[in-house]
Amino acid sequence: MRIFRLINGGAVSSFVVLDGRVFVLMVDPITALKLHYEGRQVPLGPSVNVDLDELLGRDYTYNGLRFTKPYDPPEVWGSGIVYEVARARYTEEDVAMIKGRSIYELVYDAERPEIFFKGTANRCVGHGEPIAIRSDSEWTLPEPELGVVIDSRGHILAYTISDDVSARDLEAQNPLYLPQSKIYNGSCAIGPFLVTPDEVGNPYNLDITMRIIRGDEVIFEGTTNTSKMRRRVEEQIKYLIRNNDVPDGTLLSTGTAIVPGRDKGLRHGDIVEITITKLGTQKTPAIKLKS
Amino acid sequence: MRIFRLINGGAVSSFVVLDGRVFVLMVDPITALKLHYEGRQVPLGPSVNVDLDELLGRDYTYNGLRFTKPYDPPEVWGSGIVYEVARARYTEEDVAMIKGRSIYELVYDAERPEIFFKGTANRCVGHGEPIAIRSDSEWTLPEPELGVVIDSRGHILAYTISDDVSARDLEAQNPLYLPQSKIYNGSCAIGPFLVTPDEVGNPYNLDITMRIIRGDEVIFEGTTNTSKMRRRVEEQIKYLIRNNDVPDGTLLSTGTAIVPGRDKGLRHGDIVEITITKLGTQKTPAIKLKS
Amino acid sequence: MRIFRLINGGAVSSFVVLDGRVFVLMVDPITALKLHYEGRQVPLGPSVNVDLDELLGRDYTYNGLRFTKPYDPPEVWGSGIVYEVARARYTEEDVAMIKGRSIYELVYDAERPEIFFKGTANRCVGHGEPIAIRSDSEWTLPEPELGVVIDSRGHILAYTISDDVSARDLEAQNPLYLPQSKIYNGSCAIGPFLVTPDEVGNPYNLDITMRIIRGDEVIFEGTTNTSKMRRRVEEQIKYLIRNNDVPDGTLLSTGTAIVPGRDKGLRHGDIVEITITKLGTQKTPAIKLKS
Amino acid sequence: MRIFRLINGGAVSSFVVLDGRVFVLMVDPITALKLHYEGRQVPLGPSVNVDLDELLGRDYTYNGLRFTKPYDPPEVWGSGIVYEVARARYTEEDVAMIKGRSIYELVYDAERPEIFFKGTANRCVGHGEPIAIRSDSEWTLPEPELGVVIDSRGHILAYTISDDVSARDLEAQNPLYLPQSKIYNGSCAIGPFLVTPDEVGNPYNLDITMRIIRGDEVIFEGTTNTSKMRRRVEEQIKYLIRNNDVPDGTLLSTGTAIVPGRDKGLRHGDIVEITITKLGTQKTPAIKLKS
Repeated sequence: MRIFRLINGGAVSSFVVLDGRVFVLMVDPITALKLHYEGRQVPLGPSVNVDLDELLGRDYTYNGLRFTKPYDPPEVWGSGIVYEVARARYTEEDVAMIKGRSIYELVYDAERPEIFFKGTANRCVGHGEPIAIRSDSEWTLPEPELGVVIDSRGHILAYTISDDVSARDLEAQNPLYLPQSKIYNGSCAIGPFLVTPDEVGNPYNLDITMRIIRGDEVIFEGTTNTSKMRRRVEEQIKYLIRNNDVPDGTLLSTGTAIVPGRDKGLRHGDIVEITITKLGTQKTPAIKLKS
Repeated sequence: MRIFRLINGGAVSSFVVLDGRVFVLMVDPITALKLHYEGRQVPLGPSVNVDLDELLGRDYTYNGLRFTKPYDPPEVWGSGIVYEVARARYTEEDVAMIKGRSIYELVYDAERPEIFFKGTANRCVGHGEPIAIRSDSEWTLPEPELGVVIDSRGHILAYTISDDVSARDLEAQNPLYLPQSKIYNGSCAIGPFLVTPDEVGNPYNLDITMRIIRGDEVIFEGTTNTSKMRRRVEEQIKYLIRNNDVPDGTLLSTGTAIVPGRDKGLRHGDIVEITITKLGTQKTPAIKLKS
Repeated sequence: MRIFRLINGGAVSSFVVLDGRVFVLMVDPITALKLHYEGRQVPLGPSVNVDLDELLGRDYTYNGLRFTKPYDPPEVWGSGIVYEVARARYTEEDVAMIKGRSIYELVYDAERPEIFFKGTANRCVGHGEPIAIRSDSEWTLPEPELGVVIDSRGHILAYTISDDVSARDLEAQNPLYLPQSKIYNGSCAIGPFLVTPDEVGNPYNLDITMRIIRGDEVIFEGTTNTSKMRRRVEEQIKYLIRNNDVPDGTLLSTGTAIVPGRDKGLRHGDIVEITITKLGTQKTPAIKLKS
Repeated sequence: MRIFRLINGGAVSSFVVLDGRVFVLMVDPITALKLHYEGRQVPLGPSVNVDLDELLGRDYTYNGLRFTKPYDPPEVWGSGIVYEVARARYTEEDVAMIKGRSIYELVYDAERPEIFFKGTANRCVGHGEPIAIRSDSEWTLPEPELGVVIDSRGHILAYTISDDVSARDLEAQNPLYLPQSKIYNGSCAIGPFLVTPDEVGNPYNLDITMRIIRGDEVIFEGTTNTSKMRRRVEEQIKYLIRNNDVPDGTLLSTGTAIVPGRDKGLRHGDIVEITITKLGTQKTPAIKLKS
């Protein structure tokens, strides 16, 4: 089951893709995912006539029906330094060191993962909607990640594409600025779809690719595969919910392995395109916020 | 614009028929009707694939997607003795008389109409859903009527078919039993559609026909036309809202002119079929309630 | 337990009188009554300093803390012709007759009681708040009654004073005008208190007295006792909920036995004062509505 | 105006202390603070009889009326390294260094403050309720701080005592573990009161003292004064809401200057007592969570 939502004039409706056809979803996405997880019937309405490709081609400037985030996550969390490349990526910067080792290396080798708060629904956008560059950031990067939707007990209900947009100059300046780097309006993009585990199959063999497009040019292209995750999703979830009650529908963004580099910082008008096997392609324009 | 709702596994979704196509309605029906009345855009989703005729053929026993009431009316009111036939219909009964004239004649000739409370959303059913015969009524009749949906200021937002099911033996016994005759579980059926005034045109030239089907037999068939209304709908509304605040979406059932007679009382299993020009056909099975 | 509510600047809070002291009620009145009925603890806050007599002396023109209705009844229903005097009261009017007997006599002698819909919370006022005379009524009377609050299964949760204000000229003109006589803005007053059955004891031995005060003069005074009820409250409830689902907290006003007469119709500025043993005194000014 | 809330059997009510008397608060605390900020009337009920000292003496094991958190903050944020002592406190640990300077020194000297997400209402407790030690932390410290309640535009609506309980061993191990150190069940205590700015006066001259009590012994006592804040509250708020929409009632905990040290880590059963001038004394027992 693949869930998505469309928006029109501020109103939002939910839909499901099932066996190649699109149906009206008669309950909210979190309820649908819980019913599906429990093996119960998800109430579907009639099939709808949509050209998904065409709909996916519209962005937030389109005056009419278009994609929006596939649900409103009550809480969004992120994981860091999950892939080996993440461990390595900072070595050329003036990173924070503890007794001669970078804090990223230390996390990478430690039992405990890095888990951070990433925001709430109002800070998330969907496919075709603008991700943001803080007014006070000169170096903001998209982070294309496998997102997992969990229930309050940590069960995985669905997967999605998650872009953990980060003001990298802030966090590079000082790890204590991580929350300001990570949490702000438009700092997270999710969707276009929530895809249930039965459709995804093995989550540790998914290609993740990202392209940054500036004008007519692809200024960055990178790829990885979830097989390179050092920490299993379940392990991340275990730490996320340890002594920390989260609501049904919490989203965990499971860490990035594609790092565009210092000269590839997002500029107003850039397009970020992220594709994950079985989860589709998320395309979002970047906008620079005003102070 | 024609609004209807479908139900599946307890979940309900709204749709709109526009120029012969069916679309997802992205706001609730009352909001949609208010937007439409104000000439503002009603947020529509994609068109859906439904065979309306086939859907309309399903009843409440169908295990899957089927029609339900087109909205949840916060209050339902009825009008009485609006047509001349209503004035006359009781003359052969032992009706209540005041100084030699029946109370029905008196209302008919009076300036003030009869307006009564008919119930709330939980007492209403939709197309294909069972209307009810009170456990203590032996003579219950359907009353096929033009229903109007109004806003809190009395503006007409939409029309619908309304069946003001009535335990006629109770009210015949004593007009003081009218509320018990009129207000009980399953005493009102609305739909299948809410149709906006621009689609209905002149509301005073609509044919209303009703058939009662028992087994394979049509045991009753009657017809009238709203041109025979003695009291304009606006006049009824004027009295309904005089010193009486009603909520947006209040339904007024504007009186019947088809009276099956004493030997045509509904029995468990009967089917009531009501057709009004431009509003469609409402079909409801009757069930006898247990005490 | 006696529950009341105070209002100040549009905000409302609930309180309880217990053993002569007044406490903050930490849950809404219907929840409190259900907990009390089930023998469970009702969450009380600290005791408060109020001079109940002084508070009861304030009316709706008071700029500050004052009484309002003790709760918001989701539905209000009334019973008619419960006392013998009600049967008799109409004999001198040109009442509706069926085969030589008035419809009131007939109800009085019948097994089935008269039960009618009386309104919703927004049509009710509380102690000190204005009851209303319809703009189109010249003869409106208060009807002082024992009110009972029931749950959805018909259990009696509490008693209160209920004033079933009625436009008597409308219903006298035609029993079909009863809903217009009974249901309009300000047509029902409840309170000041909801009193639980354990405090009331035998509900069939309560004095009900009513005075209508015009300027400095008591223009009417009447008294009765609930022992004169011909129909038990339980019997009325049985008919109210027969095949008719009502919500928790539904109010049933159990019929009047005090009838001021044609020359005692309420005028703008009159004060109605109703006292019922153990339930307190309800005082409401009357206002004439504009059309 | 000082707002507090009491709980009893799971139900919560709000109160106000005004000129030494306690009144029922008839609106929710955030609404009250907004009305007060706008110079509008806050709807108060009657005064109540409470011995505040006695009530403050009860803790969460008390079976009856007791204090709870003064409101439900939709979001809680914290500031770090606001006082000079915070800058210094880590110098003896193996802290993260960037080019020879600790990350704490760097923040202290930087223009940009450290702002971090601290949690949501369900992770907060009130006076007398248990703060928590993570199951996987051996060194958890209370951090007594001036808390400020702001509206969505950053205006200060009230002050309160805030305890930013932190698993110091986690954050000491790696600054990337800060969210796990800061955000978990029972990691934040607020209250007992919300105090409006007019009662607090100058917020930069408040004594903050903290004692940790183990059994009969005070094992730690520390004191500071808000005059030692290096960063003004307004400056912290400016960064908090920069490109980051927060809801009305957001709480910002403005940084600690009292650091008990490594040997003073909280143990199950310890009592933390925090006093701030004009804001009262917050007393909370510590409990060790199970994994």
